[in-house]
Amino acid sequence: MYYIGIDLGGTGIKAGVVDENGNIILKDSCPTGAERGYGAVIQDMAKLAIDVTQRSGHRMDEIKAIGIGLPGVMDPRTGRVPFCTNLGWHDVPIIQEMAKYTDRPVFVDNDATVAGLAESVAGVSAGCENSVFVTLGTGVGGGVVIGGKVFSGSHGVASEIGHMITVSGGELCTCGNRGCWERYASATALIREGRKLCGAKPDTALLKAVDGDLKAITAKHVIDLAKAGDPDCMALFDDYVVHLCEGLSNLINVYDPEVIALGGGVSHAGEFLLNAVRAKLPEMVFYKDMPYARVELAKLTNDAGIIGSAMLGR
Amino acid sequence: MYYIGIDLGGTGIKAGVVDENGNIILKDSCPTGAERGYGAVIQDMAKLAIDVTQRSGHRMDEIKAIGIGLPGVMDPRTGRVPFCTNLGWHDVPIIQEMAKYTDRPVFVDNDATVAGLAESVAGVSAGCENSVFVTLGTGVGGGVVIGGKVFSGSHGVASEIGHMITVSGGELCTCGNRGCWERYASATALIREGRKLCGAKPDTALLKAVDGDLKAITAKHVIDLAKAGDPDCMALFDDYVVHLCEGLSNLINVYDPEVIALGGGVSHAGEFLLNAVRAKLPEMVFYKDMPYARVELAKLTNDAGIIGSAMLGR
Repeated sequence: MYYIGIDLGGTGIKAGVVDENGNIILKDSCPTGAERGYGAVIQDMAKLAIDVTQRSGHRMDEIKAIGIGLPGVMDPRTGRVPFCTNLGWHDVPIIQEMAKYTDRPVFVDNDATVAGLAESVAGVSAGCENSVFVTLGTGVGGGVVIGGKVFSGSHGVASEIGHMITVSGGELCTCGNRGCWERYASATALIREGRKLCGAKPDTALLKAVDGDLKAITAKHVIDLAKAGDPDCMALFDDYVVHLCEGLSNLINVYDPEVIALGGGVSHAGEFLLNAVRAKLPEMVFYKDMPYARVELAKLTNDAGIIGSAMLGR
Repeated sequence: MYYIGIDLGGTGIKAGVVDENGNIILKDSCPTGAERGYGAVIQDMAKLAIDVTQRSGHRMDEIKAIGIGLPGVMDPRTGRVPFCTNLGWHDVPIIQEMAKYTDRPVFVDNDATVAGLAESVAGVSAGCENSVFVTLGTGVGGGVVIGGKVFSGSHGVASEIGHMITVSGGELCTCGNRGCWERYASATALIREGRKLCGAKPDTALLKAVDGDLKAITAKHVIDLAKAGDPDCMALFDDYVVHLCEGLSNLINVYDPEVIALGGGVSHAGEFLLNAVRAKLPEMVFYKDMPYARVELAKLTNDAGIIGSAMLGR
């Protein structure tokens, strides 16, 4: 049997035919064109799914299920997407719309969740019963796999790990709370702290690196300067790692996974990030004499969305 | 089939014969006598288990399994208890010791975990697929049930929810980290803040209630004065509820359970606590338009340990 995985993003739709083991047989993509409304977007998703299947030499009745990963959540009780900010969606009947074009069962989940599933099938946490995928990007997202399956909780809203409060009374978050982990462990946090640094210390290397343009600061600037040994960015990066590890130790205390996989923009810092985390985390773990989660870099990058959403129906 | 549940505490051992539905057929107890060493304690547990079974009119071969709840964890790889501070245990081969006295399978888990299981079988979260039991006592413990089963993670150390960091850089915890939730949501937190209040404001009602003896302050003093409308204790209790809700919203964001059951000493504040939590929590929940966990008071108090440990083998 084969599966179709659809990775629905703000700018593009990717779809692929995937086998039982998470191998992509054939994939393709098209623009999202979200401004056309959900009807046209969902029609294009279905068309692309049917098209890649035909071109892969398979029939739709060989497809066991279609999975969709999107930057939002689906309410499992209604089959509707309550909201999906990047796409401007509000209360979209995605299951009903897909049924206009295909009789295959359709499964929908959050994009970070499906990326976590992909890693647990064909990536760095392959074969693990329990694993957590953490995306360190503009925000912090999570994909939690428990017992080899996506864990979405009782109302489909589990694994909002970026909104764990780790700094009571801290930075205001987009969700309305203060001190959410993602305010401290995202790329956005490195940028914010980088700007603060430049404001407080006009001769710092970071400000020179962006020719004095605060708005040009990226997480990569901060990380590259820390790698190069700039003391200001090293201090900033060390603080970032402490906050990152606070959340990771929370994940260990609540999920106790075999592997925590780090993905997203900040994870491109690679071994530099991984080594810093592996140096800090052990002192924060509760049971110091017992084994705990390995922290690794996520392995599947661009294909994680296709593979993981395909695996939703497995 | 029947099950034996053993609740092993620092001062007493309780054991009961329990049916499939979590009803206690017959129970009894004896002192722990931890100072005698683990061998004697485990022998007494086995004796008590056999004794209650016989007195209940059943044979040991009608007992499907024996469960033990204790204030520590078992390492599932080794069948040993790495440590159990209240009992002075270190690396105790509990499965091997129990096998000296009975051929019934033995399951061991943390006492908060088994209390959570008990609530999910015969208590306030009965019938829920996913639920979290939170004990607000000297510390904060957790019992997590996922898919109707105890969730212990990959290394048996999941559900250490009291050690989620919610206040980065905050109060030093017994675990070595700073700002663990239990430093802010336990009875101990109410006592600590009560003492600070008395130190700062010698004419406060709390200090009068304990005749000027700071050491006599209990969580109940603080709660009773807050209930009675004392402004200082009301403010203190309000702060407590904010911190409690920060951790509860974290639990919703990571586990998305159907029910969060509050137990332990502070939960004796009853509706007063429950109403305060139910007033504060909604504004902190991430998905404000979607249903989320009901917060309830735990129902099984003294029998939760027997019922829950019995259900470990179900």
